[in-house]
Amino acid sequence: MFVPTKLYEGKAKILYTTDNPDVLLADFKDDATAFNAQKRGSIQGKGSINCTLSGKLFQQLESHSIKTHFIDCPAPNQMRVKAVKILPLEVVVRNIAAGSLCQQTGLSLGTVLPQALVEFYYKDDKLGDPLLTRDRLLLLKLATEEQIESITHLALQINEFLKGFWQQCGITLVDFKLEFGLDSQQQLLLADEISPDTCRLWDMAENDPNRRVMDKDRFRRDLGNVENAYQEVLQRVLKVLESQKL
Amino acid sequence: MFVPTKLYEGKAKILYTTDNPDVLLADFKDDATAFNAQKRGSIQGKGSINCTLSGKLFQQLESHSIKTHFIDCPAPNQMRVKAVKILPLEVVVRNIAAGSLCQQTGLSLGTVLPQALVEFYYKDDKLGDPLLTRDRLLLLKLATEEQIESITHLALQINEFLKGFWQQCGITLVDFKLEFGLDSQQQLLLADEISPDTCRLWDMAENDPNRRVMDKDRFRRDLGNVENAYQEVLQRVLKVLESQKL
Repeated sequence: MFVPTKLYEGKAKILYTTDNPDVLLADFKDDATAFNAQKRGSIQGKGSINCTLSGKLFQQLESHSIKTHFIDCPAPNQMRVKAVKILPLEVVVRNIAAGSLCQQTGLSLGTVLPQALVEFYYKDDKLGDPLLTRDRLLLLKLATEEQIESITHLALQINEFLKGFWQQCGITLVDFKLEFGLDSQQQLLLADEISPDTCRLWDMAENDPNRRVMDKDRFRRDLGNVENAYQEVLQRVLKVLESQKL
Repeated sequence: MFVPTKLYEGKAKILYTTDNPDVLLADFKDDATAFNAQKRGSIQGKGSINCTLSGKLFQQLESHSIKTHFIDCPAPNQMRVKAVKILPLEVVVRNIAAGSLCQQTGLSLGTVLPQALVEFYYKDDKLGDPLLTRDRLLLLKLATEEQIESITHLALQINEFLKGFWQQCGITLVDFKLEFGLDSQQQLLLADEISPDTCRLWDMAENDPNRRVMDKDRFRRDLGNVENAYQEVLQRVLKVLESQKL
């Protein structure tokens, strides 16, 4: 009988082997961390919400010719994914200034950027996930020039699709973080997750800078109602998907 | 009678107006600061050493067709310079990994880079002089694409000249910071200074990682003998220049 082995435990997910070496099982946790794990907590139901949401969004992206690691969800908080070698990069796409972009540039929160900004950060907790210039990316051999170009192109394509999708949900996509992996054929696949943990999502019906927040910033900034916000995001996504079937 | 006005006081220099609106007088101070002015002190004789050194190096660069703001030195710690509008950028050229590059990438101190790295930082004390990607440079309108290209080209040219010059002094040029300004014709001029305050300089005759340091790192890291190191750098430069005249 096959005994699954824990391959990797991250802040939000545990990865297990399966009986197929090309397939892994991701178990989404309710654990929440922020500020490079200096702040820790739990968001009830988060694992299932983020897993379900990510699964739905990956399926949508696949139907728009974006290759992802998604296979299926055998349980609400479990996702079967293609085994990939994750590039140690956090690829951030920004439509509106928020978070570290504001802190590092002096731009005001909410500044609409003239065009989407694709940024690369070094996924390294010890170094504090620092911003990378193109030259540093190449110097550290974190990606080839070709991979940087492909990732930038994919990130912008994904942004175009997601911006429109979230808009149908009555939600503004402020920014989001992607991770990419290479499969055994060295093909780039979108990996990780797409959820209120990894996107900044603002309720289009709210102008109040705190009330509009529907993402992990509620946890980071102690805004309260974290579970409700995550639940509301899932419900809106499911409703839009339901309406598309009609 | 003309009364000079203090135009600007920085951490290491004071700029005064002169009776010619196209000319300013820079007064080099002995004040030393580090870590965004969290550490403060004084290095005796630094003003004169850095002013004299910078003047000599600017003259050398001018004779190699690099345009600088330098006019002349009416006193050992005073430099007359062309009035320019300084771009709010710290342009750093790196030949060997040190300082923030090590902290932000995990590269070991002393790693020889496969090619010179030209990096841009936002000259803004409140923000802590953060690293800028090309996209952020353009987003913040800190320079045009053309200016970025010209500055990068100039920085590499200056590096090629300075590397060779310091080598003649028995000194390895690890990295250095440049500032550029625009004159009334929007022409890019090298400005600020070139000195042990703005360059990392290692004595080629020393292998010990502390003993070899001949620059402001002696002050930053409390290595002692700061004045001696600055004085030694000046003496070596003057000796090389003297030998060139023969």
